[in-house]
Amino acid sequence: MFARGIKMNKKLQQQIAFLGELEKLKTVTRMNKTLDSGRNENSAEHSWHSTLMVLILKEYAPAEIDVLRVVTMLLIHDIVEIDTGDVFLYNEERRKSVEAEELVAAKRIFGMLPSPQDQEMLALWEEFEAEESADAKFAKAIDRFQPLINHPITREKGDKIESVTKSKIIEKKRFLKEYSPQLWEAALAAINRCLEKEIIADC
Amino acid sequence: MFARGIKMNKKLQQQIAFLGELEKLKTVTRMNKTLDSGRNENSAEHSWHSTLMVLILKEYAPAEIDVLRVVTMLLIHDIVEIDTGDVFLYNEERRKSVEAEELVAAKRIFGMLPSPQDQEMLALWEEFEAEESADAKFAKAIDRFQPLINHPITREKGDKIESVTKSKIIEKKRFLKEYSPQLWEAALAAINRCLEKEIIADC
Repeated sequence: MFARGIKMNKKLQQQIAFLGELEKLKTVTRMNKTLDSGRNENSAEHSWHSTLMVLILKEYAPAEIDVLRVVTMLLIHDIVEIDTGDVFLYNEERRKSVEAEELVAAKRIFGMLPSPQDQEMLALWEEFEAEESADAKFAKAIDRFQPLINHPITREKGDKIESVTKSKIIEKKRFLKEYSPQLWEAALAAINRCLEKEIIADC
Repeated sequence: MFARGIKMNKKLQQQIAFLGELEKLKTVTRMNKTLDSGRNENSAEHSWHSTLMVLILKEYAPAEIDVLRVVTMLLIHDIVEIDTGDVFLYNEERRKSVEAEELVAAKRIFGMLPSPQDQEMLALWEEFEAEESADAKFAKAIDRFQPLINHPITREKGDKIESVTKSKIIEKKRFLKEYSPQLWEAALAAINRCLEKEIIADC
């Protein structure tokens, strides 16, 4: 029986336990939809889509970025939602209260990793959240850009996104103008497609 | 009306069209399951999970690897399934016939990108498929390792994976021993968990 004599060191066991924990992110759903009959997108799918966007759109970062660091930020940025759930960008009240919970979640989940991987991942997640470094700013720009590409593709004409208007989107995404002027142009074009499909209110 | 005067160059338009096309991968399902009540995992979720595994397990690559290249391979490796669908590892007949179709799909989908991104992505996908470089070998090891971590977490006891036995898994995953000896140990441990949960046949 090959089972005997399998020796995994503690470090690898911790890494595998962390990777297994990630299964839960595939069950965290967002306000976005997918092309299969109106199912909601989950945070694992969003993370994959956003991360790939970094590779394709990296030339539009206005400052020099470390692509691998930005990619890593996008891969891990939503892992905290395993504990907190996704909070819709336009749910102002819940967004304020969730911040402290997210930090607790980050410490628990990245804490499953062996040292120093646990601290490295936590530090990178905190850098993303702080939105101060060039890497974090571009990562945040991509994170907020992805839903704009998704909405007009996955929603039928007239399938309104709850409580979202053109002016609210503009207010929430305006920072893209600084973080990546070209992506801001692309965001405006995507918002236009949302208006044409009547999935956001024109006010 | 802000819509007037939005100017996206052709290059950015092509990139956005490619990124929109990716929505379709979220609808391509695999033999693996997820933690939401027996739903099948899709290839976007698998791609996210595998890519993150590279970051956590990169120290187990036996040769020097370029992590960003391996990450890119994993992010794009299943995009061809938008056209071909996922082919189960143990469906020998279909696996032979699908190879040519996958190349056609890769050319169509990466061909949506502007030059030279289209050729760069196609070349990286072909390198992954050829499984000759150190980067491709480690990427392939991770791609085949991820389902082994997923199965015992997402399947109930006794929920057998169709037509898969211990000896078939060993035959298909044995290459891990060369590509990453430590991951081979972890794979054996995961196969053991599958046996304990009676989700693969012990023969």
